[in-house]
Amino acid sequence: MKLQLLLLLLALLVIRVHSQSEDEKQLKAIYDKALTDGKAYDWLNHLSNQIGGRLSGSVQAQQAVDYTKRQLDSIGLDRVWLQPVMVPKWVRGTPEFAYIETKPGITTNVPITALGGSVATPDGGLKANVIEVNGFEDLKALGREQIEGKIVFYNRRMDPRMINTFHAYSGCVHQRYSGAAEAAKFGATGVIVRSLNLRLDDYPHTGAMSYGETPMEERIPAAAISTNAAELLSTTLKLNPDIKFYFKQNCKQLPDVESYNVIGEIKGSEFPNEIMVVGGHLDSWDLGDGSHDDGAGVVQSMDVLRLITANGYRPKRTLRVVLFMNEENGLRGGNKYAEVAKAKGETHVFALESDAGGFTPRGFSFDCSDENLEQIKSWKKLFEPYLIHMFVRGGSGADINPLKDDTVVLAGLRPDSQRYFVHHHAETDTFEHVNKRELELGAATMASLVYLVDKYGTILPGKVKG
Amino acid sequence: MKLQLLLLLLALLVIRVHSQSEDEKQLKAIYDKALTDGKAYDWLNHLSNQIGGRLSGSVQAQQAVDYTKRQLDSIGLDRVWLQPVMVPKWVRGTPEFAYIETKPGITTNVPITALGGSVATPDGGLKANVIEVNGFEDLKALGREQIEGKIVFYNRRMDPRMINTFHAYSGCVHQRYSGAAEAAKFGATGVIVRSLNLRLDDYPHTGAMSYGETPMEERIPAAAISTNAAELLSTTLKLNPDIKFYFKQNCKQLPDVESYNVIGEIKGSEFPNEIMVVGGHLDSWDLGDGSHDDGAGVVQSMDVLRLITANGYRPKRTLRVVLFMNEENGLRGGNKYAEVAKAKGETHVFALESDAGGFTPRGFSFDCSDENLEQIKSWKKLFEPYLIHMFVRGGSGADINPLKDDTVVLAGLRPDSQRYFVHHHAETDTFEHVNKRELELGAATMASLVYLVDKYGTILPGKVKG
Repeated sequence: MKLQLLLLLLALLVIRVHSQSEDEKQLKAIYDKALTDGKAYDWLNHLSNQIGGRLSGSVQAQQAVDYTKRQLDSIGLDRVWLQPVMVPKWVRGTPEFAYIETKPGITTNVPITALGGSVATPDGGLKANVIEVNGFEDLKALGREQIEGKIVFYNRRMDPRMINTFHAYSGCVHQRYSGAAEAAKFGATGVIVRSLNLRLDDYPHTGAMSYGETPMEERIPAAAISTNAAELLSTTLKLNPDIKFYFKQNCKQLPDVESYNVIGEIKGSEFPNEIMVVGGHLDSWDLGDGSHDDGAGVVQSMDVLRLITANGYRPKRTLRVVLFMNEENGLRGGNKYAEVAKAKGETHVFALESDAGGFTPRGFSFDCSDENLEQIKSWKKLFEPYLIHMFVRGGSGADINPLKDDTVVLAGLRPDSQRYFVHHHAETDTFEHVNKRELELGAATMASLVYLVDKYGTILPGKVKG
Repeated sequence: MKLQLLLLLLALLVIRVHSQSEDEKQLKAIYDKALTDGKAYDWLNHLSNQIGGRLSGSVQAQQAVDYTKRQLDSIGLDRVWLQPVMVPKWVRGTPEFAYIETKPGITTNVPITALGGSVATPDGGLKANVIEVNGFEDLKALGREQIEGKIVFYNRRMDPRMINTFHAYSGCVHQRYSGAAEAAKFGATGVIVRSLNLRLDDYPHTGAMSYGETPMEERIPAAAISTNAAELLSTTLKLNPDIKFYFKQNCKQLPDVESYNVIGEIKGSEFPNEIMVVGGHLDSWDLGDGSHDDGAGVVQSMDVLRLITANGYRPKRTLRVVLFMNEENGLRGGNKYAEVAKAKGETHVFALESDAGGFTPRGFSFDCSDENLEQIKSWKKLFEPYLIHMFVRGGSGADINPLKDDTVVLAGLRPDSQRYFVHHHAETDTFEHVNKRELELGAATMASLVYLVDKYGTILPGKVKG
């Protein structure tokens, strides 16, 4: 009996060592392929430089649907299809214009950009006094009396002390998203928001905003101002609170139009009904070309389906790439995908999104059960040669979040975040700011996790793992 | 007795917890100060944009000496001084020029740059047939017969599969450093070297070369060619091995001139004779402005002496910043510093160099005893909030390496290496490619390690630690 036990342990050890080295080999093959034969960078070059910014409902968004479908058709998947989804169509119109007026006729032009979803100013623009605030609490403290008829200037700065810059973003994004709705309650006539950028520069950063329940006739225009101009405006106000601010924008919301999620699939060889998703979002803002947000995530996700087959590996579970439409101003694609999956009774065991830029990958954040997180952490050592060290609890990605239930493991790629908010939603989000190797390392890191999840399966509640 | 033991353990635990939280606080104070009140980025702006490339012996190198001394004078150190050192003075002369000649009169211009230390071509330039090789073994295989009278074209590519790009550099740098000396042995008339760049682009990368023992009259000119042009030349040679290559450069070596290491010091309050050094090199190549190599290391090292005093901390050991002159083409500053230290009988317990670019820091490599490495690794957890995860054995820095003995702990900052060789020694090494936060995080990471080494001391051979 003792000998049997010993032999069993020995056998397990052999299997483990063998398996470990097989996994090491497969990860090496995946990274090698990404760095020597990756397609992500070429695809991104096309998306960014031949198509450009891909605002939902735009011609460019449709070109991106067509292009990525064609590319997925060409890489030998089992199935590629378009999933129709109605998306909002907001258009920026002619370039925005703004100035600070210190005395009548004495003006300084400043760079602004309309927030996505904002209404236009009156045709002749909007000129009013300005009241600077640091958040919604300030609105209450000031009251209608000091706000009515004025432009509210939200100037909360992102906290530079946060090492994860997304935490600094979280501390400020409410002023962009809900600032107009909140200011309107106190009779403000317009809203100017400091750009969510950790750097001082001259580029305004757009992004989604919502009027919430604000009735149509009470909606006020909202724009972002560059960080340098925010500093200038703040300093000018300190010298003279009576200065005026002028801005003009003629953006508008058109009726919804039809668009698509682009989906490609490798059918699982053993567990075809267990679906794994890898994805990013195909739409972007219109100021830059959307290379980091989220062209990078799109092309990395597409390449995962090529990279995982390095060394002839064939997924046991069904692996889908989903290129979501309309993450930026509606999340319609993410919601539609989850809705259809539910209606069809599909079982999603895993979903991974890349939507934090094409920078050097550091690891992943996970939204899943403790058991699954523990299993994933047991693979940490395999990632060490690639300097992947973060395996933490946290959000996954906006597009895959609607898939959340007690079965699925949701994950987000975590690239180095230091440079992200220099580019995010601004005209500086362009192809030349993506480093080929950093992008490829991200794709390989994603493919490696997908490989391990596929091989070992996830731990389903109340089931033994497959 | 048992109670006494228990109380002792409890006391130790309290000390440990207290101390841990004191260290946590101090690191937080250091990082906060770097990210909100760092001086590194402003200093680098001046070095890069007001001074520029700082080749040893140049006017700019002297300006950098003057500027950094002035800045160190202004931050309240105990002592700042210049350490004289004779340095080589190599000058590039007028811009290099080169073309591929496929037939007489049919030419394509290609970007090249003379290697540092190279001789000039003849006044009218050098035109010859080309033989492509992948390394020194190929020279032997080809023999004098196939090499004599030709230009040797070293076209070994950096291996993109290496995750640490410095390993890929190590696999190729011999062709740049010794390529001319080796080719001359077989009667070559000149040398063209593929730039040490992982990216395909149009920028040639210079760097040091040496003729070793080659007699003066047998020295042949050597230049680097951009990676795109290297691909073009290689392809052209495959189509027709008889094509000619022309290049012209009029660089030359002048007599040595006097220059300086710039040194600043905070005297240790308890162990003034235990010296800790933090440094980078002040000289750079002349093509860009030397922002990453090694302006970043210079300004980070300078700021370490400000950051460490966050929260009023006063170093127990003597802390020196040393800005070394002439790392790139001679290492005279590093050698001089070690020579003077030895002559004075100084005890260096620790030296840390930053010379791998101003990118997001990932950790350190250490050249020290096992005991010291173990002690340092026991601090790993303190660095986790800052995503610093690499504590590995490895080289430290060229300038501090001459300090090596069995007492000193040598360390090198390890930033993310993916983008380094896009910029290294090329005209693309400029200020706009340095991200302020990444630079500041590097300075804070260095200051944090210096703080811990200062507080806990290093483990000296045969001594109990101080």
